[in-house]
Amino acid sequence: MNNFSFHNPTQVLFGKDTIPQIGEELAKRGHKKVLLLAGGGSIQQNGVYEHTVRSLEAAGIARAECWGVQANPVLSKVREAIALCHSEGVDAVLAVGGGSVLDSAKAVACGFYMNDVWAAFEKTEAITRALPLFTILTLSATGSEMNMFAVLTKPEEHKKWAIGHPALYPVVSIVDPSVQTSLPWRQTVCGGVDSLSHIMEFYFIGKPGDTTVAVNTAVSRTIIQSVDALQRSPEDYEARANLAWGSTLALNGISGCGLNFGEWSTHMLEHAVSAHHPQVAHAEGLAVLFPAWIEYCQASNPDTFRAWAERVWDSPTVEAGVAAFRNRLRQWEGPVRLADLGVDAAEIPAIADTAMLTQPLGSLRPLSRQDVVNILEIAAAA
Amino acid sequence: MNNFSFHNPTQVLFGKDTIPQIGEELAKRGHKKVLLLAGGGSIQQNGVYEHTVRSLEAAGIARAECWGVQANPVLSKVREAIALCHSEGVDAVLAVGGGSVLDSAKAVACGFYMNDVWAAFEKTEAITRALPLFTILTLSATGSEMNMFAVLTKPEEHKKWAIGHPALYPVVSIVDPSVQTSLPWRQTVCGGVDSLSHIMEFYFIGKPGDTTVAVNTAVSRTIIQSVDALQRSPEDYEARANLAWGSTLALNGISGCGLNFGEWSTHMLEHAVSAHHPQVAHAEGLAVLFPAWIEYCQASNPDTFRAWAERVWDSPTVEAGVAAFRNRLRQWEGPVRLADLGVDAAEIPAIADTAMLTQPLGSLRPLSRQDVVNILEIAAAA
Repeated sequence: MNNFSFHNPTQVLFGKDTIPQIGEELAKRGHKKVLLLAGGGSIQQNGVYEHTVRSLEAAGIARAECWGVQANPVLSKVREAIALCHSEGVDAVLAVGGGSVLDSAKAVACGFYMNDVWAAFEKTEAITRALPLFTILTLSATGSEMNMFAVLTKPEEHKKWAIGHPALYPVVSIVDPSVQTSLPWRQTVCGGVDSLSHIMEFYFIGKPGDTTVAVNTAVSRTIIQSVDALQRSPEDYEARANLAWGSTLALNGISGCGLNFGEWSTHMLEHAVSAHHPQVAHAEGLAVLFPAWIEYCQASNPDTFRAWAERVWDSPTVEAGVAAFRNRLRQWEGPVRLADLGVDAAEIPAIADTAMLTQPLGSLRPLSRQDVVNILEIAAAA
Repeated sequence: MNNFSFHNPTQVLFGKDTIPQIGEELAKRGHKKVLLLAGGGSIQQNGVYEHTVRSLEAAGIARAECWGVQANPVLSKVREAIALCHSEGVDAVLAVGGGSVLDSAKAVACGFYMNDVWAAFEKTEAITRALPLFTILTLSATGSEMNMFAVLTKPEEHKKWAIGHPALYPVVSIVDPSVQTSLPWRQTVCGGVDSLSHIMEFYFIGKPGDTTVAVNTAVSRTIIQSVDALQRSPEDYEARANLAWGSTLALNGISGCGLNFGEWSTHMLEHAVSAHHPQVAHAEGLAVLFPAWIEYCQASNPDTFRAWAERVWDSPTVEAGVAAFRNRLRQWEGPVRLADLGVDAAEIPAIADTAMLTQPLGSLRPLSRQDVVNILEIAAAA
């Protein structure tokens, strides 16, 4: 086990009918006016917006609203929201939505105090502080509700980059799994695959006997079982709740204790793919790329890859584990090859060039451009 | 899954050679002088005291020292330490030791601001604030390094009671598993059993499919495997580290997410036993009482008790799981019956009377005095 520091100050309020607590949580910390950041309007259909607004009003919290955050959220919307924070004089940010909204809200929160928020992603200007961030999660997937990371895209430059800073931990995140009951099946699968992928970015760094590897095995199995249960019965609250909490545990620090800072090369490859194809859902990119990365890199830590196959997929070999993983993705109606994402094999060189902009790329096994090409070719042929 | 709130602000610095960070952690938060609270002197043999003092001095942190905290820590020592905090003008408390030292430090930290610290345990005076608490852990067992709880004994009244308050979360806890290499075998076993017991206080509340039950299964197995490995090889750092982090996870809130506030009746029974027999190590009391409680209460949540037997002990029935648990305790040279603790069956009525001072007693199954007597009789006959 490697040395580590664990420090996660976010308070999570988890469970049914927890959204109406948001007003009081803001008021008791002295906030008067928030920027409410949201996506495309689904929260107006499922009651989340109404419960949120009613709670804010009951607690005397004023608000400005900024709508239209999209999947693979973009810099321009963040800049618009930062300008609104200044013109409206807000003292906190309230993100209501899924990971894209939460990540955008983190960029808004720190960008509020910066000359240029994109400079934080380019690592040319340091984050030093942020507006206090509160979140109401409507799609369990990215883990953004309980971590200090955010990913943003600048489509005109084919860049999809990440920031991380302790000031970006949400102060309070509310997770009511029951509001996820109305999600389309595809989004449920994306949430499950994204969460599994976060765990896998840590898993293969470890040793089979590690406490954290054991925990990650347990959370992985729970996520898989929960998605299976939701395929049978989308309104199964217990499965929604187990998937939601598993998703939070997948990227709140617990899954990485003693495993350095994780691997993250598959995420970088996915960012390269979706920088070229913004229509690709992050999780679907991961679904296609992770099995390929595992096949390619298994020799770098064979005992742990084999333990993953045995314990998570009840499979005797890594190859069988990868096959079981892909079979489950097919059963869930998810993509398994690059073509399923609308990505042509002819684009592999250009995607590899973009991937190589992140350096170093890979921790367990540092990846050369040729390695990236090889992995993408496995993903094309799957 | 029940609704829950998770919020644990403690920073854990975990791993080899982490103790020398303590001075800087205090200094960067503006502290000038600490009360260093310690036990019987083992930290002078294993180098922990020397590393701590050198780090404090390098960072310019002054200190007053209070030694002599014992197992089953007592009120009188806490009062002595509080008086020293006032006379020496400290601005933080630094606990260096095991759970008894850490729990005492929590009582000191809040008692500093109270008329009478014991009133917090009697619930007649509310805790409102506490001196900032820093800890260096030398025995992984109680989980006190990353939670807000403390247990203290007032021997003259046969009372062993608990407090809990968010102000009692340590600010920073340092856990260097390598300093536990020199622990006597009996203490290693106590640490493992105490940690397992914490998980069990939550485990049986849940449903077999719960994310947290899956995590608790994983942590339980890791703890058992780590103690086994340390019986073979006490200097196995990986096993020490896995046991140490498992012990922290057993009672830092993660093991209870969605499981209400846990069960805790076996802990209350143990407090009653050791209130009458202060020489009984807390974990050894739990080792004797938990199997008895499980046998007695299994009908209250049969699927989960059976899942525990199957998943933690690879046993087909609860009876077989309890037998496997007791067999492992024997293999570890631990106690399995009341007589092994030096407790005579004739004392059961008096112990039951003390146990009934805690009301309500039991969550999954509320315990009457007769229930307590029955459980103690099972523990006497095991």
